[in-house]
Amino acid sequence: MSFNRLIDKIIETQNPTVVGLDPKLEYVPGYLREKAVREYGANVRSATAAIYAFNKGIIDAVCDIVPAVKIQSAYYEMYGYHGVKVLCKTIKHAKKKGLFVIVDAKRNDIGATMEAYSAAYLGSTDIGAAEEHEMFAADALTVNGYLGTDGITPALELCKKNDRGIFVLVKTSNKSSGELQDRKLESGETVYEAMGAMCEKWGSDNIDDKYGYSCVGAVVGATYPEQLAEMRSKMPHTFLLVPGYGAQGGGAEGASKAFDERGLGAVVNSSRAIMLAYKNGNYSEKEFGVAALNEVIRMKQDLTSYITMPAAPESV
Amino acid sequence: MSFNRLIDKIIETQNPTVVGLDPKLEYVPGYLREKAVREYGANVRSATAAIYAFNKGIIDAVCDIVPAVKIQSAYYEMYGYHGVKVLCKTIKHAKKKGLFVIVDAKRNDIGATMEAYSAAYLGSTDIGAAEEHEMFAADALTVNGYLGTDGITPALELCKKNDRGIFVLVKTSNKSSGELQDRKLESGETVYEAMGAMCEKWGSDNIDDKYGYSCVGAVVGATYPEQLAEMRSKMPHTFLLVPGYGAQGGGAEGASKAFDERGLGAVVNSSRAIMLAYKNGNYSEKEFGVAALNEVIRMKQDLTSYITMPAAPESV
Repeated sequence: MSFNRLIDKIIETQNPTVVGLDPKLEYVPGYLREKAVREYGANVRSATAAIYAFNKGIIDAVCDIVPAVKIQSAYYEMYGYHGVKVLCKTIKHAKKKGLFVIVDAKRNDIGATMEAYSAAYLGSTDIGAAEEHEMFAADALTVNGYLGTDGITPALELCKKNDRGIFVLVKTSNKSSGELQDRKLESGETVYEAMGAMCEKWGSDNIDDKYGYSCVGAVVGATYPEQLAEMRSKMPHTFLLVPGYGAQGGGAEGASKAFDERGLGAVVNSSRAIMLAYKNGNYSEKEFGVAALNEVIRMKQDLTSYITMPAAPESV
Repeated sequence: MSFNRLIDKIIETQNPTVVGLDPKLEYVPGYLREKAVREYGANVRSATAAIYAFNKGIIDAVCDIVPAVKIQSAYYEMYGYHGVKVLCKTIKHAKKKGLFVIVDAKRNDIGATMEAYSAAYLGSTDIGAAEEHEMFAADALTVNGYLGTDGITPALELCKKNDRGIFVLVKTSNKSSGELQDRKLESGETVYEAMGAMCEKWGSDNIDDKYGYSCVGAVVGATYPEQLAEMRSKMPHTFLLVPGYGAQGGGAEGASKAFDERGLGAVVNSSRAIMLAYKNGNYSEKEFGVAALNEVIRMKQDLTSYITMPAAPESV
């Protein structure tokens, strides 16, 4: 239960960075695209094969120094079912490499339908064979709480049963997030505060003693440091996924507001700056892995200059 | 632009019913499942082959008397990428049969990522070949507006460019929808009213003269007739997708509140009652198609006993 597995890995790697795998085809080095086209032709299959080779290269380069990856479903769905197959393969490879896998799909629906999404990403599906099959088998899934409790409960039940987590959108990193989320309610709280209070409630019977967090996390953007600090304090049992660092304009000092007094309680995502590091430094395109690794190290140093976490347990 | 194509078809069929294709494997008649298992074995492939055969049977049975189908993505994702492939095939078959296809996926994200979702469902993707490829090619997509304008704009642009539509969640049909959606804002309006006002704003430069609706629709549940009547009046240019009729408890009189004084402005969805009609009447399982057809006719008569729409144009 809860986010203990993720927090253990953050302490082990001394790194609260999550690598976002949002691979548009245009991000993929030309030589990988050409190789795939030679093998499969200029079609969707080769596009997704190139994306998978790129993902695999980045995962293999960074897997020892980061705790987690965040896989953004949209960038796979845009390549149709071939893309979704590569989403599935990427999850499997990341898990094989020991990474905690967050699928960022922001799913939401009424109870009966949310059961289907939850089975897909956090559980398993009855296919009429002897055993149920795990389909995407993520460690955590992002969800949207606009539908209230019965759109969250099916995911929550599988989190408890299968040791998984959800991250509920609270205050998102984009410019117009405030149009609804910052609106003041009659009660005086904002919409995002109300959503944050629901997260605390949904996780309330599931708070783990080891670190004090439940299996219900929340998304709060690094682009809004004041709200990060506010929500860190108002959601003491809610682990935070913090997007918006880097390409979206959020800095390490701002992101540091997401952490508790122990230097725990959050992971900070970066996608484009890591995937495209090879284009921004003095690298050849075949060095995209080491470029990503160096960017992760730079980001880790940047973040940990503002936070101090518990020391890693000595390896045996 | 706008929902004209859908409204034309509603008038042509004199039927504001949308058939929801939410096919869990357990809904599929045993003989179709057994046939698929004989062909592919007891695995995910045969499960999804059986689901496709079921979908195809229902589409072929109802395509002449309904304007549209709504395909719920969750029930395909729960079968992994094989399921997503069948989602894609189902869209193609429904379009071939002349149906307007709504993909109910409730997608939402920040601008850059929403571009990817929009390309997937409402546009096309650059795969490095001569032409861009359409991946899912829906006529309309359901979306969640919690992130505000820049999470909607990319979808809106493709709607305008490619004659598609979006339905934004406003007041959902589930029991706990009010936990956030009914909260009163300081301004006196509820959260769902604020979302409805955003829908009107998003569609404001895109209102078509023929019927007066824009390409931005909204989801309001049949289970809340008062709010349906309220939002019909407050969103005069917003076409409504109304779930919750039938299995979820909404009735025709309630659903009729979604329609304007011309008897237009909404489609009402039913999923389980149509797909499972063969289990609820005096039918053999091979008669699932005619059972679905009869349930659609019953539902059409039920709905049109409360609303009167313009007469169908005479066929040439």
